[in-house]
Amino acid sequence: MKLHLLHQCVFSTPNIISLIKLRASSFSTSASHREAAVSMVQGASRGLGLEFVKQLLEKNSQQHVVATCRNPDEAAGLVELKNKFSERLQIQRLDLTVESTIEESARAIRERYGYLNLVVNASGILSKPDVIHPETTLTKVERSSLLLAYEVNAVGPILVTKHMWPLLKVGGGSGTERDVAVVANISARVGSIGDNRLGGWHSYRASKSALNQLTKCVAVELARKKDPVICILLHPGTVDTDLSRPFQKNVPKDKLFTKEFSVQKLLSIIESSKSNDNGKFFAWDGKEIPW
Amino acid sequence: MKLHLLHQCVFSTPNIISLIKLRASSFSTSASHREAAVSMVQGASRGLGLEFVKQLLEKNSQQHVVATCRNPDEAAGLVELKNKFSERLQIQRLDLTVESTIEESARAIRERYGYLNLVVNASGILSKPDVIHPETTLTKVERSSLLLAYEVNAVGPILVTKHMWPLLKVGGGSGTERDVAVVANISARVGSIGDNRLGGWHSYRASKSALNQLTKCVAVELARKKDPVICILLHPGTVDTDLSRPFQKNVPKDKLFTKEFSVQKLLSIIESSKSNDNGKFFAWDGKEIPW
Repeated sequence: MKLHLLHQCVFSTPNIISLIKLRASSFSTSASHREAAVSMVQGASRGLGLEFVKQLLEKNSQQHVVATCRNPDEAAGLVELKNKFSERLQIQRLDLTVESTIEESARAIRERYGYLNLVVNASGILSKPDVIHPETTLTKVERSSLLLAYEVNAVGPILVTKHMWPLLKVGGGSGTERDVAVVANISARVGSIGDNRLGGWHSYRASKSALNQLTKCVAVELARKKDPVICILLHPGTVDTDLSRPFQKNVPKDKLFTKEFSVQKLLSIIESSKSNDNGKFFAWDGKEIPW
Repeated sequence: MKLHLLHQCVFSTPNIISLIKLRASSFSTSASHREAAVSMVQGASRGLGLEFVKQLLEKNSQQHVVATCRNPDEAAGLVELKNKFSERLQIQRLDLTVESTIEESARAIRERYGYLNLVVNASGILSKPDVIHPETTLTKVERSSLLLAYEVNAVGPILVTKHMWPLLKVGGGSGTERDVAVVANISARVGSIGDNRLGGWHSYRASKSALNQLTKCVAVELARKKDPVICILLHPGTVDTDLSRPFQKNVPKDKLFTKEFSVQKLLSIIESSKSNDNGKFFAWDGKEIPW
């Protein structure tokens, strides 16, 4: 930090962008810092996202986590974790539908850490009273629901990936047991076109199919550029969260997972992932899902 | 028509909806009219859509076509066909991004014919100067492009299918050589996730993957309800149209089709399609494309 302050004094006309770059590089080249893995969990206020944050912090005492959500003030679960993990947890406001908040998060992470080793895009919308409800028939398909699901479930995660990409390239697998940094996009088996035998849920299914395609596009580019980053898709199973609660009626007891179980399974897939997993779509049990 | 007018007089307080229903049923039960196939081509002002209209009218002297586009006044190609085919071609204004214009088209078709045997969703957006351009890298992916491509290429065709569904159920395969009415959604091989080896074109690819999933959802429901309607996806090949023109540089001469050739191939797939083709994704040569 002393070197960093010295650098600042050299400038006769301080330039904010140059300062930010210097601060980032002073962190990213700091050996002690590079030993700590830095993960970002997007959509972390509850459900799977919150559980990812908890397990990442609990499993590795060197792990730093940036947890993002729309309304940090209302994220009681995150505040509770912040009390426990203090310096290792940063809570950041990020609204997927407002790109400037994604850029702002990237800037904050760059300034604090200079790199990332993992991004989990955990947010998702399936239903919201009076706004969006999973369609049971074509006649109930609405333009507004199609667009909202697409914006939250497909556009948002890909914009997060776009803005975190430079940080992931710097981070790679350092501080982890992997060779690569990972972008894990939470998809869903119902996003599989080949596996669609029941129909319905048009807005949600289409948004997840699109997320799968966008993730594949990113994976192809990461591979071509030989970046130390991979992008994978994960199906968490049907998990007992707010998202699935209205639709659990027909789910057999042994097929309804706790979020603890599901996230444990997904983290083990993430932690053991390798370059050649890039662009793949895994279920919670590690089996690949067809497109 | 006399019966129809008589019916109207019975009402002491005329009800527009009832009148429309009566008019529709008077057409749909007319044997002479049911012998004529009625097709709708959405996105018919130019390119593949215009060619579909032309070939449908030319190949079958009993064929009626409803051609829809955003600006009929500027659709020179359609006006030319109208001069030639007069009564067998109806030109209708339909803006995919304004659902009321889709409903209005359905109402007009119901009043005039009472049924449909074919809907071709031919419109599509890939690029537009200063608005949307196929992305060559993740860093160029923009929220506005993702949403626009989705709205035009996925949301629009599915809303058209929703509003034409009742007319297709009435029409089935009558007046054609098929057992079923057909919704043919023009997709693209680049919408295949499994076949994505080059990456890029994020907005377009994702919108077509979503269209594929939405079409699959519709197909599952049509099959479950045993409607005399199927929904298929078609890849036209790389065709020499305004859509592909900026991107033809690297296409080998023998892989760049004329629109006449492509539409001839696609119409032969449509005309020979059967119930068990429901929900499938065909290339111009009849081969299935993976999801």
